[in-house]
Amino acid sequence: MDPRASYDELIRRSREWSTLSSCSALLSWDEQTMMPPSGSSFRSEQLGLLAGLEHDRAADPRVGELLAIVEGSDLVADPESPEAVNVRELRRSFDRKTKLPRSLVEELARVTSRAQHEWVAARKARDFGRFLPWLGRVLSLKRQEADCVGAPSGDPYDALLDEYEPGATASQLSRLFDALRADLVPLVEAIAGATDRPDPAVLKGTFPVDRQKILGELVASSIGFDFDRGRLDTSAHPFCSGIAPGDCRITTRYRPDDFEESFFGVLHEVGHGLYEQGLDPDRFGTPMGASVSLGIHESQSRLWENLVGRGRPFWTHWFPIARRLFRDPLGHAEFDAFHRAINRVEPSLIRTQADEVTYNLHIIIRFDLERALLSGDLPPADLPSAWDERYRHDLGVVPPDASSGCLQDVHWSAGLIGYFPTYTLGNLYAAQLFDRATATLGDLDQSLSRGDALPLLHWLRDHIHRHARRHCPALLIQRATGSPPDPSPLVRSLRERYGPVYRL
Amino acid sequence: MDPRASYDELIRRSREWSTLSSCSALLSWDEQTMMPPSGSSFRSEQLGLLAGLEHDRAADPRVGELLAIVEGSDLVADPESPEAVNVRELRRSFDRKTKLPRSLVEELARVTSRAQHEWVAARKARDFGRFLPWLGRVLSLKRQEADCVGAPSGDPYDALLDEYEPGATASQLSRLFDALRADLVPLVEAIAGATDRPDPAVLKGTFPVDRQKILGELVASSIGFDFDRGRLDTSAHPFCSGIAPGDCRITTRYRPDDFEESFFGVLHEVGHGLYEQGLDPDRFGTPMGASVSLGIHESQSRLWENLVGRGRPFWTHWFPIARRLFRDPLGHAEFDAFHRAINRVEPSLIRTQADEVTYNLHIIIRFDLERALLSGDLPPADLPSAWDERYRHDLGVVPPDASSGCLQDVHWSAGLIGYFPTYTLGNLYAAQLFDRATATLGDLDQSLSRGDALPLLHWLRDHIHRHARRHCPALLIQRATGSPPDPSPLVRSLRERYGPVYRL
Repeated sequence: MDPRASYDELIRRSREWSTLSSCSALLSWDEQTMMPPSGSSFRSEQLGLLAGLEHDRAADPRVGELLAIVEGSDLVADPESPEAVNVRELRRSFDRKTKLPRSLVEELARVTSRAQHEWVAARKARDFGRFLPWLGRVLSLKRQEADCVGAPSGDPYDALLDEYEPGATASQLSRLFDALRADLVPLVEAIAGATDRPDPAVLKGTFPVDRQKILGELVASSIGFDFDRGRLDTSAHPFCSGIAPGDCRITTRYRPDDFEESFFGVLHEVGHGLYEQGLDPDRFGTPMGASVSLGIHESQSRLWENLVGRGRPFWTHWFPIARRLFRDPLGHAEFDAFHRAINRVEPSLIRTQADEVTYNLHIIIRFDLERALLSGDLPPADLPSAWDERYRHDLGVVPPDASSGCLQDVHWSAGLIGYFPTYTLGNLYAAQLFDRATATLGDLDQSLSRGDALPLLHWLRDHIHRHARRHCPALLIQRATGSPPDPSPLVRSLRERYGPVYRL
Repeated sequence: MDPRASYDELIRRSREWSTLSSCSALLSWDEQTMMPPSGSSFRSEQLGLLAGLEHDRAADPRVGELLAIVEGSDLVADPESPEAVNVRELRRSFDRKTKLPRSLVEELARVTSRAQHEWVAARKARDFGRFLPWLGRVLSLKRQEADCVGAPSGDPYDALLDEYEPGATASQLSRLFDALRADLVPLVEAIAGATDRPDPAVLKGTFPVDRQKILGELVASSIGFDFDRGRLDTSAHPFCSGIAPGDCRITTRYRPDDFEESFFGVLHEVGHGLYEQGLDPDRFGTPMGASVSLGIHESQSRLWENLVGRGRPFWTHWFPIARRLFRDPLGHAEFDAFHRAINRVEPSLIRTQADEVTYNLHIIIRFDLERALLSGDLPPADLPSAWDERYRHDLGVVPPDASSGCLQDVHWSAGLIGYFPTYTLGNLYAAQLFDRATATLGDLDQSLSRGDALPLLHWLRDHIHRHARRHCPALLIQRATGSPPDPSPLVRSLRERYGPVYRL
């Protein structure tokens, strides 16, 4: 069989298992937004069946045969050609899938499903002891997974990290994160000690949910989210799902007494959605039509949420509109007071509620602790004390119990080890990208002040979205910004924006 | 392999392909209610893939082998046992599926897909000539399908009809329908000539859509639709989809100037939904957990829509509530004027807008014409004149063009031949069932007047829903009502209800 025909068959197969996966994506979206309560047990059966069918196809030995024919052929001579990228990435995921014995995959699915239930119960009971044996079981299985997959560095953590952030290693991340932490801890301390503080009273009041929804839609479409190719709905936990070409769905949640949660939540998910909508629909179902990593995905959401959405230029355009929509709470608000209020910084216990400045400290703590848990340096039983110690040191707060401490996140119970650092990578990348876009576009502030975000979107389309998986994330950032991943633009940006807010 | 093990494997397989079909049902529901416009082309790919996977499983030769082992074994000795019913019905659908060559199935899919597009264009252009060649192609393929499937009677129409109404034959239906028509035509004439007529002015005004939705939900749950196991949404064409156990979804559409369309539409779909929710969830994915025919399904929707929903007892409870919800149009309406207005009869051109009395004449015309088209007695080119002639004779109206004549329905372009008569069978069955339930329950009118529909629902659960596919539809009706399918209860019911409305 010649390489071209083999390649075509490979692509046809990739599209087929991706189509099954897109059916699962729709079913999952529905489960979280629309499904009546009694539908849930059968929904698991539907998703289980589809996942099995998808796995059988993606791990079919025929895929390995086809890859072997194409690899080394002229078709993939140019390593940046779509063909070469698709083959390289299909090999990557085929190897990962076939290296794991089915027994381990099934055991992981079973244990993490039970562990998540036990985690819910333990968190509710504020009882770490109840979760402890399950954490041990998950860690042991994840070590087995890392052994099966392997990593060039020999560090098991890298084998897990590679699934979420291809090519990244724990030692690189450590260097980046240590440097970031060294600057963040004093910045957080300085802010905590500031005496001229933003007053959140300006954000108190009732923000009718239907109007919050309208403002969310206005902002989303104004920055480029295409509602002909997407939706915005409500769910308990906000998310973005790129279900299919031409169909990307985001969600948020509304509280009538809180304007910020849904507003910045929508901006965040729209950022993810713009990335999905910026992928080539004709390449859907192949690596050249897919997002490259969780870190890059998060960079897109955080860029719009924080670097655009908390900025003065953005609100120069949107504040008068928000004021008209929410006349009761905002009708007499001052721009400056409002802008300072939405940029409050408060060292706190809960990651998901953390502000932009302290957020990365929450992540770095988790990264350090999960590495130590996986390597065995930190016995699971010692996790609560290690956690509390780091929170005291880095953030100056101490959890009153495990539920607001090391039991707060679902990730570890779900077997997601190596996932946390992508949040902070996203923040680093976002600052680097925004820095570079500002330098290149020149009048970015002016266009944002006019409510015109399209120049920025086009820059991101050009430098990130259209490349799909052509480069690994670090190289993609290097090509887009001229520098490898680097914490200094983020630190600079935080100082420049939060210094004035706190009159430092 | 012993019969029990074979039976268990058969059931496991049936559940698996039904689970795929339930995924398709969710995707189709989403397509009609939620999907953004640009999602449609990929949605066809998803549905096509799932349909192929389902067909491969349902037509797998292994299913034939398993059936052969179980058939004739002690396991199916009692023909009314769940095992015997499941085996009988799995055989029925396996034979039907395997008798059709794949080439014909694909050709039918291709041609009906094109034909539906051509039908849309032809209807828009009011140009029957444009649709004519496609009608010919569809008919020729449906004749081939009928030849492959075969029918004991030798009538090709019966082979097609059997898919929708198992066991029914065209000759039986002809007898029922001819008798019905003989009574309906003079009843419609008498009503058309009545001088004391209902005045629709009482229904004029604005009915806010959010309130229509609330009333629809109130009525739906009050008659037993379980919103923990279902939803009510909006779509261009109302439908009911029993997606999965615990998940049945209905839709309607709203017009602020029209209270009747959504109200009776909801009642209709709720009737379908109550049947789906009355099936045994533990038997989902097997014939003993599935509805038996389109005719029986329609009997459930029409019973609630018309026999309950247009009756005086029902409105004795609901009219005061509707009056409070729609104070502007209904605040000063009289009960009797309102009740007469929602029971207006008007011979008209369009089936989907027809009232309860004239509706069956629309169907009988289609039944007679599609039989003649399939047999070749009626050349497709002569359809418009045959259509117009029958409308003139039976309903006293003549279509000004083909769009309001023989081009009005999607069915024939979609290859749905043998489908129309199930609408009128549903009306016959509904009247028989309601008659019997009234006789048995004694105080049905009183309970409906109190807003209590549960005795009727329980009677339907007992006599129809829980039997699933145990009996063929005609036998199910015989067992439930003591009589075979019979038009006289319907005629009697129409005379008794519409005589007073028109003061005949």
